[in-house]
Amino acid sequence: MDHGDLGGGTALLTDRYELTMLQAALNSGTAGRRAVFEVFARHLPDGRRYGVVAGTGRLLDAIEAFTFDDPALEFLTSHGIVDEPTAQWLESFRFSGNIWGYPEGDCYFPDSPILVVEGTFAEAVLLETLVLSVLNHDCAIASAASRMAQAAQGRPLIEMGSRRTHEMAAVAAARAAYISGFATTSNLAAGRRYAVPTTGTSAHAFTLLHDSERHAFKAQLASLGEATTLLVDTYDVERAVRAAVELAGPALGAVRIDSGDLAVMARRVRDQLDALGAPDTRVVVTGDLDEYGIAALAASPVDGYGVGTSLVTGSGAPTASLVYKLVARADGPDADAPMRPVAKRSAGKPTRGGRKSAVRRMDAHGTAFAEVISTGEPTPGPRDRVLHVPLVREGAVVGRESLERARERHAQSVRELPPTALQLSKGGPAIPTEFVEGGPRS
Amino acid sequence: MDHGDLGGGTALLTDRYELTMLQAALNSGTAGRRAVFEVFARHLPDGRRYGVVAGTGRLLDAIEAFTFDDPALEFLTSHGIVDEPTAQWLESFRFSGNIWGYPEGDCYFPDSPILVVEGTFAEAVLLETLVLSVLNHDCAIASAASRMAQAAQGRPLIEMGSRRTHEMAAVAAARAAYISGFATTSNLAAGRRYAVPTTGTSAHAFTLLHDSERHAFKAQLASLGEATTLLVDTYDVERAVRAAVELAGPALGAVRIDSGDLAVMARRVRDQLDALGAPDTRVVVTGDLDEYGIAALAASPVDGYGVGTSLVTGSGAPTASLVYKLVARADGPDADAPMRPVAKRSAGKPTRGGRKSAVRRMDAHGTAFAEVISTGEPTPGPRDRVLHVPLVREGAVVGRESLERARERHAQSVRELPPTALQLSKGGPAIPTEFVEGGPRS
Repeated sequence: MDHGDLGGGTALLTDRYELTMLQAALNSGTAGRRAVFEVFARHLPDGRRYGVVAGTGRLLDAIEAFTFDDPALEFLTSHGIVDEPTAQWLESFRFSGNIWGYPEGDCYFPDSPILVVEGTFAEAVLLETLVLSVLNHDCAIASAASRMAQAAQGRPLIEMGSRRTHEMAAVAAARAAYISGFATTSNLAAGRRYAVPTTGTSAHAFTLLHDSERHAFKAQLASLGEATTLLVDTYDVERAVRAAVELAGPALGAVRIDSGDLAVMARRVRDQLDALGAPDTRVVVTGDLDEYGIAALAASPVDGYGVGTSLVTGSGAPTASLVYKLVARADGPDADAPMRPVAKRSAGKPTRGGRKSAVRRMDAHGTAFAEVISTGEPTPGPRDRVLHVPLVREGAVVGRESLERARERHAQSVRELPPTALQLSKGGPAIPTEFVEGGPRS
Repeated sequence: MDHGDLGGGTALLTDRYELTMLQAALNSGTAGRRAVFEVFARHLPDGRRYGVVAGTGRLLDAIEAFTFDDPALEFLTSHGIVDEPTAQWLESFRFSGNIWGYPEGDCYFPDSPILVVEGTFAEAVLLETLVLSVLNHDCAIASAASRMAQAAQGRPLIEMGSRRTHEMAAVAAARAAYISGFATTSNLAAGRRYAVPTTGTSAHAFTLLHDSERHAFKAQLASLGEATTLLVDTYDVERAVRAAVELAGPALGAVRIDSGDLAVMARRVRDQLDALGAPDTRVVVTGDLDEYGIAALAASPVDGYGVGTSLVTGSGAPTASLVYKLVARADGPDADAPMRPVAKRSAGKPTRGGRKSAVRRMDAHGTAFAEVISTGEPTPGPRDRVLHVPLVREGAVVGRESLERARERHAQSVRELPPTALQLSKGGPAIPTEFVEGGPRS
C-alpha cells in the first residue's frame, strides 16, 4: 500500500515523539534492548458486548512500506527533528522483529492482547502510531458494522458512507464493513483495491436533471437494464412506483426509499408493488439508518439496507480506544539479557506488565464463556481456542490472508459467543476477561 | 496530492452511482446539460454555534488529480461498472467547470452554500463523493478544534490524535486543527506535507525502557537538551518532578502530566516547580481532554494542552453532515438553454432550488448578525461581507492559498461573531440564516 506523496512510504504517518525517543535511546545505548509492546483496549465503547479485530491486512502492508526515503530524511534533519546519527540509522531501517495478533475478523474484549510486537525497543516503538491509527479506525468500524449485520438478520447491507468520512478512511471503512458481514459497498476504490463487491445506481440529482421523473426512469432503464434499482422518493412515492413498474415491467430489480417513515413507506411500497404484479421487485431503504433503525425494520418488508453515516463514524464510537504499551523489556543491554515485565502506575491508567497469551474458553456446547489471558507459557485446555496467530516473523510478513477468510472467521467468531452478545441494548462484555498469572513467557 | 495505488488519481474515491448516473445520462443525452450543485449543511451538530470551513486546499488538489488512468478504466469496464462509451468519455475527463466557495477558515451556519459547483451535469456529478468526503471530514475537525481554541484562551494547543483515527485522516485532521488555531501537531506527515509545526518528546515506554526514571530523564536531556518536555507521571509525580529539576536545572522546558485529576496535579506540580526554583518550566497537560476539559482548567496553572481523541473524532460530531445537491440545471439540451431551479420534495429532506449567493451582514460595530442567502443576483449592502470566492475557473484552480492565510481568516471570522458564538454550552446557531428570494442568478 502506498500512502501518496509521503515518499511512497508510511514512515511519516507517525508522531514526532516516536523519533525523538528513538534518538534519545540510540544516544543512551538502550535502543537495542529487546522489547515487547502489546495492543489492547482498556474497555469496550459504552454498552458494547464485543469488539471486532480489523485492519490487520492493511497494517501488514503499511509495515512493509514503513521505510524512510531521502526526502523523508531530509525533512527530519532539516527541521531538527532528528540528528545525523539517528537519520543514518533510519536510512537502513526495516522492521525485523516478530508480530503476533488475533486474526482479522475475530472478536475481542477488554484487555484482549490483540497485537503483540516483539523486537528491539527502537524498531517496535517506531511502529506505535501507525499500528494504532490503522487498528483504532478499522476495529471501530468493524465493531459497529457487526452489530448492524446482526440487526439485519441476513438481509443484505450496503455500505454507502464514503461521503461522510475522510476519502481514504472511506476505503478502509468499506473493507472493515465487509469483514463484519456487509454485502457490498458504494466505494469504487474499495472494489478495486480489496475486491469488495460494489453497488449503486442513481441519486435524486439524476431525476432532477431530467424533464420529468418518467424521463429519468426511462433513461436509467435504457442504460442499466430492468434489474436496476430506481429511486422513488424525489417527488411522490406512489406515483413514482407506478411509473417504475409501468416502464420496467415486473422484472424491475428494486426500488429505493431514502426518506420518510421507512417502516410505513416500505409496507406501502411493498403492497403497491405486489398489487402492480411486481412481487419480485425488492424494496431497499436508506437514510440515517443505524443498528437500531435496522432492528426496528425487522418486521417490515425490506429486502436491503443502505447504511452511511453511522457506519463510517462507528455508530457513536469512532475510535476503538486501543493503546500500544511496553509490557516487557530486556533487563540490560546484552542480546541474551533476560526479559522483565514493566508497567506504568499512572493514576487511573495503570498497565499490566509481562507478555500475554490468550485463549477463548468454550463450554461443552462450543459456546465461549471466558477470555483467559495469561502471562505464563500458554497451556491451552482441550476446549480453549488459542487466539494469537503469527503475522510477522523476523520482519517478513507471514500472516497475509484473503478478505473472504477474515469475513468467514468473523461470522464464526460471533456464532461461538453467548446469545447476550447479540443484544443491541447496552450491557457489559459478552464474556468476562480473566487474568491468570504465570512465569514470564519470554 | 497523490492518493496511492489508485493509479495516482483520486477518481475511484467515489461512489459507484456517480458513474452509473453518468453512463445513463450520456445514453439519454442529458449528460451535457449545464448544472449547478451546492454543498451545505441542513443543520449544525447538536448545540453548536457555528461551523468552520476546512479542506478547501486539499479538495483543490484532489480535483486536479481526479482523472481516470488505464488501470482505473480497466477496473471499471472489466467489472461491468461502466460500458465502453462511458469509459471512453472518462478517459479524457478533466473537470472543466467553475467552483466558488466560502474561503477556508471562514465560519458557516445552517444552509450556508459553502461550495457552488457549476459545469455540465456529467462533470459536476462525478465530483460529489470526493467533495463531500474531504469537506465533511475536515469541516468536522476544524469546527471542533475552533471550540477548543476558544476554550484554551490563548494557551497553546497541541494536536496529538493521529493514533485515534485513520492514518491519512490524521494528516488532514492536523491540518484542519491548525487552521482553527492549534499551535502544533505531533503528526510528522502533516509537518512535511502542510508545514504544520510539529512537536513531541517522549512517552511512558521511554521511561519504562530504562533501568530507572532518572536514567530515562538523563538520556532524554542528553539527547534533546534541557528545553525538552519530561513526562512525569509514569510512577510517582512528585518524585519525578524533583528528579527532573535536579537533572535539568531551572532551564527545563516543560513537564507533562498525562493522568490523574489534571487541575489538582497542575497546581501541585506548579507549586513544586516554583519551590524548586524552576518558575519558567512550563506545565503541559494531556489525557482525554476536550473543549470542556480545557475550559475547566482555565484557572489552573497550565501552559499548554495536548488534545487527541476528541479532536480527531470531532468531539462528538465526527462528520459535518454536508450534502451536495443539484439546485439548478439547463432547461433543455442546448448550450444556451436557460437555467431553472430544481429541488426534491422528499419527506423531511426537501431542498431549496436555485443557485445561491451569500453575505454575512454586520452591524455598525462590525459584529455579524445574519447569514443572508439569496437566489437573486447578489446586491451586497455596505456592511455585508460577500462570502463566495472563486476557487476553480474553467477547470483551472485559482483559489489556492497558504494555510497561514486560512488560519488568519479563521481567527478574524470568529472575532466578528457575536459573543454567544463562543459559549461552549449547547445552543442554536450564533446568527440566524435568512433567505431572500430573487431572480435566478444564472
